Amino acid sequence: MTTPEITLYTNKACPFAQRVEIAFLEAGVDVNKFQVNLQVKPEWYAPQVNPASKVPAIAFGGPKVEPDKPSPDSTKIAESLVLLEFVADLYPHAHLLPATPVERAKTRFFIDAVSTKVLPAYFAFVLRGEAPDKLFAALEDAQALLPPTGFAVGENFTIADAAVAPFLGRADIMLKNDLGKFDAGAGVAVHKEIFQGGRFSRLQKYYADITARPSWKATFDEDFLVDYTKSKTLKKL
Amino acid sequence: MTTPEITLYTNKACPFAQRVEIAFLEAGVDVNKFQVNLQVKPEWYAPQVNPASKVPAIAFGGPKVEPDKPSPDSTKIAESLVLLEFVADLYPHAHLLPATPVERAKTRFFIDAVSTKVLPAYFAFVLRGEAPDKLFAALEDAQALLPPTGFAVGENFTIADAAVAPFLGRADIMLKNDLGKFDAGAGVAVHKEIFQGGRFSRLQKYYADITARPSWKATFDEDFLVDYTKSKTLKKL
Ligand SMILES: N[C@@H](CCC(=O)N[C@@H](CS)C(=O)NCC(=O)O)C(=O)O
Ligand SMILES: N[C@@H](CCC(=O)N[C@@H](CS)C(=O)NCC(=O)O)C(=O)O
Repeated sequence: MTTPEITLYTNKACPFAQRVEIAFLEAGVDVNKFQVNLQVKPEWYAPQVNPASKVPAIAFGGPKVEPDKPSPDSTKIAESLVLLEFVADLYPHAHLLPATPVERAKTRFFIDAVSTKVLPAYFAFVLRGEAPDKLFAALEDAQALLPPTGFAVGENFTIADAAVAPFLGRADIMLKNDLGKFDAGAGVAVHKEIFQGGRFSRLQKYYADITARPSWKATFDEDFLVDYTKSKTLKKL
Repeated sequence: MTTPEITLYTNKACPFAQRVEIAFLEAGVDVNKFQVNLQVKPEWYAPQVNPASKVPAIAFGGPKVEPDKPSPDSTKIAESLVLLEFVADLYPHAHLLPATPVERAKTRFFIDAVSTKVLPAYFAFVLRGEAPDKLFAALEDAQALLPPTGFAVGENFTIADAAVAPFLGRADIMLKNDLGKFDAGAGVAVHKEIFQGGRFSRLQKYYADITARPSWKATFDEDFLVDYTKSKTLKKL
């Protein structure tokens, strides 16, 4: 059986896309990547790859083609969380999902808690300047789900870790640099609480364990992200 | 190996809980159910079963106990979509998820489209009286994902169908009975468009195929739901 063609449509600035990049690297796969310019999207991208016009998306199977000439014969798949499960399904030997139904459920519950509680509270603080209380509460709940050591559901790195990592990383550098729609200094204060204070020490160890991994170092470019945020995102806020 | 103890904490009125009831029945499992009174919740429910104090939730494993005396030794799992995957993982022979990574991704993408597009637009119309345009658009996108015949991702019933079915059923009876926060008559008009008009004929066939199944008939009590909605929900709207 030959290996199917895979192209990952991505963007260095996008946390959702980084999730999937991390998952491929954790599976030991050096996937073929195409950087989609999100400011000026290629005209073929929405009609031929992802009707929602977002990254990440994958073209899977079909003939070998240039990424900017996607084949109608490949399957196109979008949505980062769908893609994390897809990568776990493609490479079962990588154990990106644990083996037992209960541990798999814990993995997915962690992802749900991050998606439905932590991220909305984070965006409310950074993009709309709301009070950080809900962010602290959601992070405490997420932290409480972590086992005493290791990753979100144990000693193995799973898709739960790939799902949360890009947002921890962005919170770290956005807040440290006081970048966001909050009062001047509020970002730095929240950074101190989350990334240095005693209240979130388990979360800090978790974050350190994530950022020590090659899959993190290969997919997270701090200088680029800070410059990018300063130049692009904040203007639109 | 003995079969682990399973209790499903549920409520007849809850669409999220019905998802999981359907999945168990489709797996051929007559799961032990406990009806949680959502108006006056048992005081042990949040601390001992689900801190979020919602149904559905499952107690899995541990000793055989009465549902209202949950054992600390069982694993508690919440969130309907997490539980659908859990049921699929527990009973692989039921094929509630397809076999190939691509088909599994299509199943999850369908669930994502329903959760992030159809449901918010449905609630906006029914609970807040907003215009139904977004609901029609989201349903058209979901309908476009359906194959020409069969269920959401093919001839087999999957967790994608279990996820959407309870909301189609509730939309049907709420709108037919003009129950919601819209102008009088608007519900009936939207019902006609969705459940009778030519624009949604594929969706109508899909809904008919779902409601023909024993798993539907055993979990959907139309008269109860209409009475319940009239007496409880609308008062709070
Ligand atoms: N729910 C999507 C969100 C992806 C997303 O929002 N991607 C952004 C970049 S971070 C994007 O492509 N935006 C382009 C646009 O919306 O036009 C996922 O999880 O994959
Ligand atoms: N996201 C949850 C939603 C569950 C939910 O909202 N359940 C409602 C009944 S339909 C509930 O238990 N409400 C009780 C409460 O919020 O106090 C899931 O998918 O399971």
